[in-house]
Amino acid sequence: MSQTFKLTLAYDGTAYHGWQRQLALPTVQGVVESALAAIVGQAVPVEGSSRTDAGVHALGQVVSFSCETALTPADLKRALNSQLPDDIVVVSSESAPAGFSARRFAVRKRYRYVIDDGETPEVFRRGYVWRRRRRLDEQAMHRAGQGIVGRHDFRSFETNYPSRVSSVRTVFDLRVYRGLEANRDLVAIEITGNGFLYNMVRTIAGTLFEVGRGRHSESWPAEVVAAQSRAAAGMTAPAQGLFLLDVEFG
Amino acid sequence: MSQTFKLTLAYDGTAYHGWQRQLALPTVQGVVESALAAIVGQAVPVEGSSRTDAGVHALGQVVSFSCETALTPADLKRALNSQLPDDIVVVSSESAPAGFSARRFAVRKRYRYVIDDGETPEVFRRGYVWRRRRRLDEQAMHRAGQGIVGRHDFRSFETNYPSRVSSVRTVFDLRVYRGLEANRDLVAIEITGNGFLYNMVRTIAGTLFEVGRGRHSESWPAEVVAAQSRAAAGMTAPAQGLFLLDVEFG
Repeated sequence: MSQTFKLTLAYDGTAYHGWQRQLALPTVQGVVESALAAIVGQAVPVEGSSRTDAGVHALGQVVSFSCETALTPADLKRALNSQLPDDIVVVSSESAPAGFSARRFAVRKRYRYVIDDGETPEVFRRGYVWRRRRRLDEQAMHRAGQGIVGRHDFRSFETNYPSRVSSVRTVFDLRVYRGLEANRDLVAIEITGNGFLYNMVRTIAGTLFEVGRGRHSESWPAEVVAAQSRAAAGMTAPAQGLFLLDVEFG
Repeated sequence: MSQTFKLTLAYDGTAYHGWQRQLALPTVQGVVESALAAIVGQAVPVEGSSRTDAGVHALGQVVSFSCETALTPADLKRALNSQLPDDIVVVSSESAPAGFSARRFAVRKRYRYVIDDGETPEVFRRGYVWRRRRRLDEQAMHRAGQGIVGRHDFRSFETNYPSRVSSVRTVFDLRVYRGLEANRDLVAIEITGNGFLYNMVRTIAGTLFEVGRGRHSESWPAEVVAAQSRAAAGMTAPAQGLFLLDVEFG
């Protein structure tokens, strides 16, 4: 019987050339599709909510697919978790209505970008942060970030514009905060939007970083949006600090 | 001028064959001594409080050494951190009185052993936990652990007894607890003692694990101590879940 599934995945992107299947390179989609094919005995294309880039991590990537199987969602989770390498985990598994699409039905995605600005780097997080030596002013970054919240043409933050049909997106929420206690040397930039352009979150992180270290004023990020030019923005922060946190559906 | 230094190191032990220098294998001591030699221009033997085993991590390994240098402790920290690979970090650096020995002057060492018993494994901790599928009763483990607190001959928990002159050690404190919030799928065994035999903490972890999963009663660990035989204890838990937390001096 044909069933549609909705899975939530967590993965460490370090070893992968991003989400999207590529012919000769290891990708998360490729590995998940191989594991699934071994379990259900048929090739099953899997759709992800976000095409995370090479080296980007996920705590809550959502994927959908349909296949002929008698397995329950719980069976499938168990079978996949024993088949998958230990840097990809199925966190949850449920049935979805026929026609459900993790990509097209997503209405909000939330990403977190993490910077380690401690006096000494945190050894065990080194693969999951952008390491900067200078202490950042995370409150200035938060205030500055409010200047890009809203519906805008975000081409200033897009690598290789135009990489999508439209570069208009809505950022619903952006907050910058320092971790508590053991995480007090970590600055998190958390951003929720209806979708993101190629490298958009990483370029926003690189732009807010310039404010955090005092090179630009708090009004600058809004000016970067208005400039409508990638040259106006800060650098693209490295992939390893970026996490896809979760996805909401309509 | 000759100075004595006391450094605190954090390291990810994954890539190393333990602390202790070996001729042809990468070890933490070997890497630290190479970095130091490059900075001060002389071979400097470095002493560590604990000879952590292959794959064991440290948040607070303490090392001591003396050398001819005009560098301040802060200079030395900075120089070492730019020289060392990113899985070894100098967390703090200070002057110590001539003759200070990180090994001989240590009076208490604290270790933590971490088990992930979540329904799904935590991807980003996979190199730093012992992954078990069965939910553990951490309160039973804590109560059971009280049976080994005190001054005992711990040969039942020693690999290759007798590996040291005496196998009598004092465990000052042992607590088992489950992490909060995001860490609620982690069980930590924290143990403080005046010293530990070869694989002693890992065998205590393997023994308490048997209580946690209901295979043995809460009185069993005390019986294992009394048996004075390694065959009486549980398995040696894997190295990757073990962290040297800190060292106290008299």
